[in-house]
Amino acid sequence: MSLKTDSKVPLYEQIYQYIKSDIQSGRIPKGERLPSTRALSRHLEVSRSTVELAYEQLLSEGYVEAEPYRGFFVAQIEELYHIEQEKVREPEQEEKKQIYRYDFTPNGVDLKSFPYSVWRKLSKEILIDDRTELFRSGNPQGEYGFRSAVCSYLYQARGVNCLPEQVIIGAGSDYILMLLSMILGTGLRIGFEDPSYKHAYQVMKELSYETVPVGLDKNGMKVTELQESGADIAYVTPSHQYPTGIVMPMKRRMELLKWAQEKAERYVIEDDYDSEFRYKGKPIPALKGYDKNDKVIYLGTFSKSIAPAIRLSYMVLPGPLMRRYYEKCGFIQSTVSKVDQLIVQQFIEKGYYERHLNKTRAMYKSRHDVLIEELRPLMDVCSISGEHAGVHLLLTFKNKRSEAELIENARKCGIRIYGMSAYRIRERREQEATILLGYANLSEEQIREAVKILRDSVF
Amino acid sequence: MSLKTDSKVPLYEQIYQYIKSDIQSGRIPKGERLPSTRALSRHLEVSRSTVELAYEQLLSEGYVEAEPYRGFFVAQIEELYHIEQEKVREPEQEEKKQIYRYDFTPNGVDLKSFPYSVWRKLSKEILIDDRTELFRSGNPQGEYGFRSAVCSYLYQARGVNCLPEQVIIGAGSDYILMLLSMILGTGLRIGFEDPSYKHAYQVMKELSYETVPVGLDKNGMKVTELQESGADIAYVTPSHQYPTGIVMPMKRRMELLKWAQEKAERYVIEDDYDSEFRYKGKPIPALKGYDKNDKVIYLGTFSKSIAPAIRLSYMVLPGPLMRRYYEKCGFIQSTVSKVDQLIVQQFIEKGYYERHLNKTRAMYKSRHDVLIEELRPLMDVCSISGEHAGVHLLLTFKNKRSEAELIENARKCGIRIYGMSAYRIRERREQEATILLGYANLSEEQIREAVKILRDSVF
Repeated sequence: MSLKTDSKVPLYEQIYQYIKSDIQSGRIPKGERLPSTRALSRHLEVSRSTVELAYEQLLSEGYVEAEPYRGFFVAQIEELYHIEQEKVREPEQEEKKQIYRYDFTPNGVDLKSFPYSVWRKLSKEILIDDRTELFRSGNPQGEYGFRSAVCSYLYQARGVNCLPEQVIIGAGSDYILMLLSMILGTGLRIGFEDPSYKHAYQVMKELSYETVPVGLDKNGMKVTELQESGADIAYVTPSHQYPTGIVMPMKRRMELLKWAQEKAERYVIEDDYDSEFRYKGKPIPALKGYDKNDKVIYLGTFSKSIAPAIRLSYMVLPGPLMRRYYEKCGFIQSTVSKVDQLIVQQFIEKGYYERHLNKTRAMYKSRHDVLIEELRPLMDVCSISGEHAGVHLLLTFKNKRSEAELIENARKCGIRIYGMSAYRIRERREQEATILLGYANLSEEQIREAVKILRDSVF
Repeated sequence: MSLKTDSKVPLYEQIYQYIKSDIQSGRIPKGERLPSTRALSRHLEVSRSTVELAYEQLLSEGYVEAEPYRGFFVAQIEELYHIEQEKVREPEQEEKKQIYRYDFTPNGVDLKSFPYSVWRKLSKEILIDDRTELFRSGNPQGEYGFRSAVCSYLYQARGVNCLPEQVIIGAGSDYILMLLSMILGTGLRIGFEDPSYKHAYQVMKELSYETVPVGLDKNGMKVTELQESGADIAYVTPSHQYPTGIVMPMKRRMELLKWAQEKAERYVIEDDYDSEFRYKGKPIPALKGYDKNDKVIYLGTFSKSIAPAIRLSYMVLPGPLMRRYYEKCGFIQSTVSKVDQLIVQQFIEKGYYERHLNKTRAMYKSRHDVLIEELRPLMDVCSISGEHAGVHLLLTFKNKRSEAELIENARKCGIRIYGMSAYRIRERREQEATILLGYANLSEEQIREAVKILRDSVF
């Protein structure tokens, strides 16, 4: 053993490393007694406590065992090290957008309008003092002040009258559904709109729920079909059905609430994902606003309305589920940092959120108008629907063109468009092709250019 | 109907509100035809399009129905509004700390040493440009750069050799367990150390797993008892068993890995929650470092080592589970914002994390030393264990005092101490009382004062 006194590695660690590798390689066999600390320290010309420290490390890692009055013995250690782990290739992140010149994705969010300077300002102000409180564990449910801000917003903008006690904050809608599944428990059947927002459908499926598709008519989810499906929970988007854009009228809403009322364990999940963007008339109040019998689980998010990277969603729970939340998951720690909650709280309370919404709504409205105008010459071959809200519209073709053919022809022209069939749970032969065109990610100029190409060479 | 032309509320909305409230109150009965838009506009002396807008809003909310060529009719709407929701009282956040003059909580984190200025600086730098990329949807698994930083840290500090592809980032350890449960699937039996970290035990129980307690000996979880329990998964804290402080020696680790290897579906969850703080010898490498057969699920967190409000934890998955993750939950969106990931990434890469750890380790070490010194006069009535790592130690009393009595006597003196029985899964009559004393939240001075009181009046 040759020790380096000029090394940055302490002497005791050098000794420990030598002996460890000798044990690992088998040079010191199992059961062998190590030299006494006194003998080794004399031999190596180091202090006895240095050797003791090395032996203790070997002892605590289990390479040697101590026997009282006898010394240290090499322990039996089975084959070690040389980890050869299986390499699993990570799926590549979708880079397809770069292949297309124009992408009419229905899930776009314009980030050019993101209020960077306000965000920076708020973030800076919040971090300015050494506020220990900010970095302590927060309320598992979300900070009370932030939940209050969410309540006022919901009351004013969505007609939802709820208390901060009923609101639970979480890092994104997927997480909120995971938490909700812990509250609801397993063994339930969930009815989904067909066609629908497939992402939530997928999450619920992977959370081991039985999922059943429920058809739509012009008023949204068919309550008779829901009844027949045997579902316990109905997952709906009543303010703006995704992807069809149907606004569920009051009568259907009442039927849905009545269905939920018939059994104690029935609930309606209202996913109010993009109610902020409506171009005609006042915003439609949320179903939760009419929820007299406490049957609606309301889901909302700031990821759509501020930015996807803002991981901030929330749910409003009915009383009975709230009690179950406290019992079963009240101890689950919050997934959103206090700093982020405080930024968004001030963003709402200081009026920035309203201004941001109005600004983006106006911007999306202009793009919407340009798109409709550009599509007008096509009105003999197709019809527009779902155009009063959200950030996409639907084109239904009367000329027997197939969806696949339309998408492929557009692709050849460098344009990405989306087919309705991707949103269906049950496969079905479409009588007429329906294409979704989202406009949140395209400028007015780009929309003009792209629709011109679609008109001339695709549709 | 009297319209206010000077109101901020648009005329169409005033008309809509009037008619809506008349329908709601029943003043216009179900089935009644509304006046034609022409007639009403003449009557109110407003433009016809104003009335049309009001009717459209009523239509889209379902208060009226349109019949072609006949006009608008009041729809049947069941009783509405006047929501009286059940109030559920929110459990009060624990404020007990204020009642106690000294709290020896074993879960404390000193926040005075939190590097506020560095945090502010990094946060400011990251937000300085209008970087659209920062606010776009991130990688569901966590940003690659951040995962790489975690890998280097794990390799250097914990002897874990893994690839960024195997790392999944999540907002807190509870969330990580929720995600893990989606990957593992249901119907498994999980063996927990008894006594143990009850929080994780509780989470797994609420995630519907069958949980079984497995006893400890001086080397940690008894593998023979684990074998007999029929568990599929073993949840362990090998580097520093919580709460006993046992470091699992190499031999036991090998036995545990061998147990896992016997069946394809067996795994070991290694919760490496506070390995950063060790006061004697080198840090013990993680069990994952010896995981030749890809059987260890490694859990780590920055919430303990930086601050509880930093919602950033991670897991390292074995290859087969990684593949299952991509299949089943690869689409679940990340719960941590890119901004937070970038702050912590730079915190690690620029050496701040290492400096922070060394600083807090030194600080905790001093407190640890003061506590041991102050406890020395008690060594004839009790013995110290678990003192080489973490931020708490254990006192076992030889004098037949009961745990409850000790805790109650301390409480009367304004001191909060913690009993071992709270960490046991199976109730058992303790032969000797064991008390946990955490020192992360107390200054050296406070420790001196508090232990003096404990010595004089409690123990």
